[in-house]
Amino acid sequence: MALVVQKYGGSSVADADGVKRVAQRIVATKKAGNDVVVVVSAMGDTTDDLIDMAEQVSPLPPARELDMLLTAGERISMALLAMAIANLGHEARSFTGSQAGVITDGTHGKAKIIDVTPGRIRTALDEGSICIVAGFQGVSQGTKDITTLGRGGSDTTAVALAAALDADVCEIYSDVDGVFTADPRIVPAARKIPRISYEEMLEMAASGAKILHLRCVEYARRYNLPIHVRSSFSQKEGTWVVDSSEIEGTDMEQAIISGVAHDRSEAKITVVGVPDKVGEAAAIFTALSEAEINIDMIVQNVSAASTGRTDISFTLPATDGQTALTALNKMKERIGFESLRYDDRIGKVSLIGAGMRSHPGVTAKFFAAIADAGVNIEMISTSEIRISVVVAQDDIDTAVAAAHRAFDLDADQVEAVVYGGTGR
Amino acid sequence: MALVVQKYGGSSVADADGVKRVAQRIVATKKAGNDVVVVVSAMGDTTDDLIDMAEQVSPLPPARELDMLLTAGERISMALLAMAIANLGHEARSFTGSQAGVITDGTHGKAKIIDVTPGRIRTALDEGSICIVAGFQGVSQGTKDITTLGRGGSDTTAVALAAALDADVCEIYSDVDGVFTADPRIVPAARKIPRISYEEMLEMAASGAKILHLRCVEYARRYNLPIHVRSSFSQKEGTWVVDSSEIEGTDMEQAIISGVAHDRSEAKITVVGVPDKVGEAAAIFTALSEAEINIDMIVQNVSAASTGRTDISFTLPATDGQTALTALNKMKERIGFESLRYDDRIGKVSLIGAGMRSHPGVTAKFFAAIADAGVNIEMISTSEIRISVVVAQDDIDTAVAAAHRAFDLDADQVEAVVYGGTGR
Repeated sequence: MALVVQKYGGSSVADADGVKRVAQRIVATKKAGNDVVVVVSAMGDTTDDLIDMAEQVSPLPPARELDMLLTAGERISMALLAMAIANLGHEARSFTGSQAGVITDGTHGKAKIIDVTPGRIRTALDEGSICIVAGFQGVSQGTKDITTLGRGGSDTTAVALAAALDADVCEIYSDVDGVFTADPRIVPAARKIPRISYEEMLEMAASGAKILHLRCVEYARRYNLPIHVRSSFSQKEGTWVVDSSEIEGTDMEQAIISGVAHDRSEAKITVVGVPDKVGEAAAIFTALSEAEINIDMIVQNVSAASTGRTDISFTLPATDGQTALTALNKMKERIGFESLRYDDRIGKVSLIGAGMRSHPGVTAKFFAAIADAGVNIEMISTSEIRISVVVAQDDIDTAVAAAHRAFDLDADQVEAVVYGGTGR
Repeated sequence: MALVVQKYGGSSVADADGVKRVAQRIVATKKAGNDVVVVVSAMGDTTDDLIDMAEQVSPLPPARELDMLLTAGERISMALLAMAIANLGHEARSFTGSQAGVITDGTHGKAKIIDVTPGRIRTALDEGSICIVAGFQGVSQGTKDITTLGRGGSDTTAVALAAALDADVCEIYSDVDGVFTADPRIVPAARKIPRISYEEMLEMAASGAKILHLRCVEYARRYNLPIHVRSSFSQKEGTWVVDSSEIEGTDMEQAIISGVAHDRSEAKITVVGVPDKVGEAAAIFTALSEAEINIDMIVQNVSAASTGRTDISFTLPATDGQTALTALNKMKERIGFESLRYDDRIGKVSLIGAGMRSHPGVTAKFFAAIADAGVNIEMISTSEIRISVVVAQDDIDTAVAAAHRAFDLDADQVEAVVYGGTGR
């Protein structure tokens, strides 16, 4: 008997019909002979509605109370889901994050899971029950206050619980069929990736692919837990996120490039005329770090010998833009830079693929494809399995489509490659 | 420093404005130098909305899951209330029933409180915080499942918590000014009762007065905890529910009768032609007890010597009518009664007052008042401080008004008595 952990997002349980449909899928999994643990998010717009209510009573609600409020959302969805399953003749019990043993630190609004002690879940499974667990929430060690995990929290709950229960697979359901080689809204020929390594998925998530959150993939990699990303609206196989050894050893025709991701949420700040002295860059990024701003890409121009000054550009979440500018302006005299430039009309396009490790020339081909499409590259950053460029926001779609085509990711091309490879 | 426990019902926190208004009242109580613990119900129609959602996914939802669902309601209201208080510059922390130490038995939907261990509340109070506690809910001993307390549950939470914390007073807020001598919708001259004993309040609650639930008053009496029933929409003093010794010793002009209550929720069943043998009545009421039906009044007619048969009539909640008829019909052959008659067009009118103990003639005066109003009495039952009669439902208003007038409870009359009594 396998143990399957399933996670359903808010769009899958948006209304009573959604809840009943998901209940049927859960019962089918149980009937197929599996133990089933389900992690569920709040229904549809519940979380936004609750935040609206909070704003009506307080412009800056205390984080502890906001967590208490928001966790009502999963409480509702999980109880309804358990009822719908019971109505199909199977026993189901719902558990809050606290009851399921999701222990976190005390950082309200973005708590980190520090332990999972699913004793009650294990007991309920042993008694034959389907377990429904509230996603996104936990209880803080020590103070025993209710916490929420922040963005992507329900996915992280599911993976952490699956790891603690030594589950065979963690299925993450949403309203899309899996992980695609590019956003199908931009590249209609994008195709579903059948299998992808944790490392590539991490780079995809960090590069703006929204389907799985970074923390959840990191957790799965640490415990070597297979994730199956799929749609709750179809029975199709989705995308398996697994250890790279399981891919490279078997898929001979594994494409060099897994996909093209893009991100519209960043902005670029350029610190103009920084004196070219030891420690100036460190001072800038220390100030930003103290303001709790996550920097993504950094470029420092070669210093102009005539002026002894240089420009430093970096990208950051656009939502942190104002905070960063304020923090830097406070240091203007001490560092002695000339001015700040801010640009939020940028975007990032990233090419991700473990295959680029062993295939030279990927970078050149990527840059050529973008140049041929008439798009100017503003910044570049690379990792072992990713190349990212910053372009003007209006050029994102063009750049993504060009890269996707250049690396033979369009659906027709890929099929040709696969058929060729298997000799048919 | 006094410790005040306040309870606000759903109508007091029906929307954001209500929450903010209640927050101001709580802060005022804190500023006056009190420690404050607040028990809050779900906002306005939240509970009904959640029940609607449950019915959409399951016609008969499991009780455990229904409790899990419904407790989301207070979670929302208590978090919002804590936020609104924080916005006024005072620290407030919200606690679920479980966190507040409300331990119950495992009867989902109508759990009984078996212990209150408010360690976290005490600590938070000692740290200067206002505590907001979810009403209506607790956690079951042993299985540690979330439970709800059933009708009047939030009032019971407030009184139980106040008793456990040894509070100075438990203030129960609603949208009416206190306990009245009769329902002001029926008797416009009804006046607010300034003080009433636990015993009288219990009889009022049992006789259909909806302002306080029986369980809550019983709890307060057991711990001799003063309850102050008042409106959250005004600053007026309401009704104090206290030990009888505190009333009888001080209020020389205490009226003989405290009030007239009525109840439209009952029905009457008559078992016609019961053989007049030992044990027949016992068999009937044992069957009803096994069907978990609470019987209120019982009348057995004098047996007709000619037939050796008698009729037994009793009243019960109309909602239990069908269940009772079914249970009795199953026994028809064994007991040998002739038929069943069912009447839900009845109502109960009750006269309550500790003074009737020492004032003979109350019963006669009550019956005379009702007879003079042209109303027929169908059944009678009495306790030491209460007389109840069953009348046709259409006659309730007439009977209530007649009794209220006969015992000088109308506002003008009472003032006259009071002025006379003090010699002015």
